[in-house]
Formats: sequence, structure tokens, C-alpha cells
Amino acid sequence: MSKKINAALLIIGNEILSGRTQDTNTSTLSLWLNSIGVTVKEVRVIPDIENTIIETVNVLRKKYDYIFTSGGIGPTHDDITAQSIAKAFEIDYVKHEEGYKILERYYKPGEFNEGRQKMIWMPKDAKLILNPTSGAPGFSVENVFCLPGVPSILKSMLGGLKNSIIGGKPILSKTISLRTVESEIANSLSEVQNKNVDVEIGSYPFFQAGKLGVSIVIRSEDQNKINNCASQILEFVKVKKIQLVNRN
Amino acid sequence: MSKKINAALLIIGNEILSGRTQDTNTSTLSLWLNSIGVTVKEVRVIPDIENTIIETVNVLRKKYDYIFTSGGIGPTHDDITAQSIAKAFEIDYVKHEEGYKILERYYKPGEFNEGRQKMIWMPKDAKLILNPTSGAPGFSVENVFCLPGVPSILKSMLGGLKNSIIGGKPILSKTISLRTVESEIANSLSEVQNKNVDVEIGSYPFFQAGKLGVSIVIRSEDQNKINNCASQILEFVKVKKIQLVNRN
Repeated sequence: MSKKINAALLIIGNEILSGRTQDTNTSTLSLWLNSIGVTVKEVRVIPDIENTIIETVNVLRKKYDYIFTSGGIGPTHDDITAQSIAKAFEIDYVKHEEGYKILERYYKPGEFNEGRQKMIWMPKDAKLILNPTSGAPGFSVENVFCLPGVPSILKSMLGGLKNSIIGGKPILSKTISLRTVESEIANSLSEVQNKNVDVEIGSYPFFQAGKLGVSIVIRSEDQNKINNCASQILEFVKVKKIQLVNRN
Repeated sequence: MSKKINAALLIIGNEILSGRTQDTNTSTLSLWLNSIGVTVKEVRVIPDIENTIIETVNVLRKKYDYIFTSGGIGPTHDDITAQSIAKAFEIDYVKHEEGYKILERYYKPGEFNEGRQKMIWMPKDAKLILNPTSGAPGFSVENVFCLPGVPSILKSMLGGLKNSIIGGKPILSKTISLRTVESEIANSLSEVQNKNVDVEIGSYPFFQAGKLGVSIVIRSEDQNKINNCASQILEFVKVKKIQLVNRN
């Protein structure tokens, strides 16, 4: 029998502790981790207090195989997860070059302001977790994976995380981003999914440069199946005259 | 300044950790505790494992003024909260005479079977928390208050608990929702936070009707401080020509 892999979730945010916001990320992450054979053994919800984050991360990361944090990686003064993780690992907190390039491409010229640049300050050499919804990436350091608090954005990032968590056959993915809304493509996408039952197709709305769009993420262990599926999607995209968006 | 009263919540149950059930008791308890001047500083979700419950209760009860547990006080084999609390406090686990009488009256003759009787086995001399919904009481030992997991039942028991909790001044809040993104207001908001260090200002992005927005939540015991802070926020909102959003 293979070793059971476990995880803890760390929900960071005063808005959950005040009761004002109902946490749903626990359920999202737990269901997803279960589906890839990782058992969630503990969840903690803590406030946006640096020492509390540092201490809790350092307890949990030694106790469990994986830690997933949610919240506190945005641009405002109460977003202190990245700097706290850097301190927990005793790693420098620096501007992430790859992250910087991603957001530089994501925003219009002049829009990549100081507030937005805060979002690519991370522990040095952190691995990026790409964000198909709103640009700003999450990151991981060793076994600690840091995700945003906004549920729809967190959800959209899990697909790209999967390869970092399981040890089985790597699951490949391809993303097709469109200038459309989900209701325009829902039926066509269902048809493609029905014709490709062993390929996982996800659909994630995003907001970029003032416009709405949808990222379709195709996932499979088999690159040929992904390519085949992508062709079928691109067919209905062409018929519907939907514009492709380059989101890198 | 009065002493701040704090609490931790302990959500006990595999069904929350598996993601299958969405926890709502955290939000219910936090809102209620805020209203009686108790700040929730931490929430933990743990599985139905005796040693885990014992260890966690013993850590939390020494760290916080109050602990509220939810879950694991029903009649089935996996309801092990009461016996675990007894072990945590090194108190005998016994049939509670007063609780027995309550359930004896509550059930029809012949209905008060062995399974139901398990629900009034508790740590010796535990204080009962009456249950107006379904009979079976919760209980408290020192600063640890044990409630059921079913949200509607838990809710119905809070009224009867109020006199047992010594809280502080209720924590007030005001929310200002804006049609903007966080990076647009991050610097201005930081300035307001720096000028009002004893007020808690949180910033939370939201999606509503296909549009992005940010809710700013101001929290304090002092309504004047909240109002003052709100005025300063509304000043920069006006200067930046940001639209206010009604989210109710």
C-alpha cells in the first residue's frame, strides 16, 4: 500500500473570523484534494497577523505533507501572506522576475501601478502558481502553496496546481482563452466534453483590461487527446466568430 | 480600555474536512460572538479522532478566554466529543442526571432508548446548555462550550448561552462597497489605516453581476472612530471618482 498523503488548509483572513464572509475555500480545496488522493487532516482559520501566520505555517508545514493557504496575497495593506511566508522560511522577500513579466504583459501600459506590483513580491525563488482568472499568480515554497482568497479565482488555479501535488502520471493541460461569456459557449463546450469523456474540460470566466472573457482549460494525461479536443473547441469558436485572447 | 475578550472555535467533523459538507457554524458563531463583544481569534477544523480532540482542546482552552466546539455530540458511534472533553479535563465521563430527566420528559415513553441515552453521558458536573429545538442539551466545562454540529440546532441554542458568556463592548462595523479594483485604492487605503491604527480596515474584492468591486470593512468598538474612518475613505473615493455600490 502506498503512503497516505495528507494536507492542512490555512485560511487567512479577518473577514472569515468576523463571520462576515462565509468560507467556501475549505470545501473547494478539500473536494479537489480528495479527488487527487490527498486527505485534509486539519483546517485553521487565522487573522491577518504576521506572527500568527508565521507560527502557524511553521507548525503545519512540519506536521503535514502539504499546506494550502488561502487569502492575503492581493495588493492592499492587509495582504501580508507572502511576506509572512518568506519570514516563516527565513527567505528574502523579493520582486519575482517571472511574476513581474507576467503582470507586465497582463496589464495595459501604465496600469501596472505600485499597488499591482506588490502582488509579485514573494519569497525568493518561489514557484509561481498561474492564475487564469485575474493575472496575479500564487506561489509555492517547498510544501506550502499560497492561493488567493477570492473563491472563483482560487478555483481557477487548482487545475494548474495538480501536477505539483500528485506523484502519478503527469496530467497535461492546454488553455484556450476567449473574448466571450460562458453562456455563449456552454452548449458547444458540453458537446465537446461529451465527445471527449476522458478529457477534463474546465471553463473559467476572467476579467482583463476592462473586458470579460473565458478561459477553457483542457486536461488529460494524453497530449493527443488534448490536441484533438482543442481542435474541436477551435472549430466552434471559429463558427461563432469568437475572438481568441492571448493571455500567456 | 476594557480587556478584549477572545474565543476560538473548534469544528469537529470529518464531513467538513472531506469537503462534502460546507461549514456554516463558524460564521454563525462568529457573528453572534461579535455581537456580544467576543472576538474570534482562531478556528480549527479537526477530524473525529479522540486524541486529536483532546490535544486541540487542551491547547486552545489555555490560550483563549472561551472555546466553542461544534459537532460530535449526537448518538452515533462517531460522536466522541463528550468523552474526549472529559479526558481532556481528566474528569469522569458519566450519565448526567439533570440531562437524563430532560430527555426522559422530552421523549415519549419507550422512545428514550440506549442510543438517545448516550447523549446525556457527559463530563461529570458539566453545565447543561439547553436545546429548544431537539431536546438533547449541549454542555460546558469551565471555558469550553460544546454545541451540536447541525446548524439550525446550534443556532437555536445560542440564546440560552448568552448569560454564561461575559463579553465586552460589541464590535461594530461599517461596509463601503465600491466599483473599483483593489490596486486602484491600495495606497489611499493604507494611508487611512495608518492614520487610524486602532481601527481594523479590511479590503475584500467581489464579483457581482459580471462586474468587479471591492468591499471595505471598518471594524471597531467605537462608532465615532468608524464614522471618522469612513469619512476619510469617502474623501478619496470622491477625488478618484469611484462609484459607490449598494450590495444589499
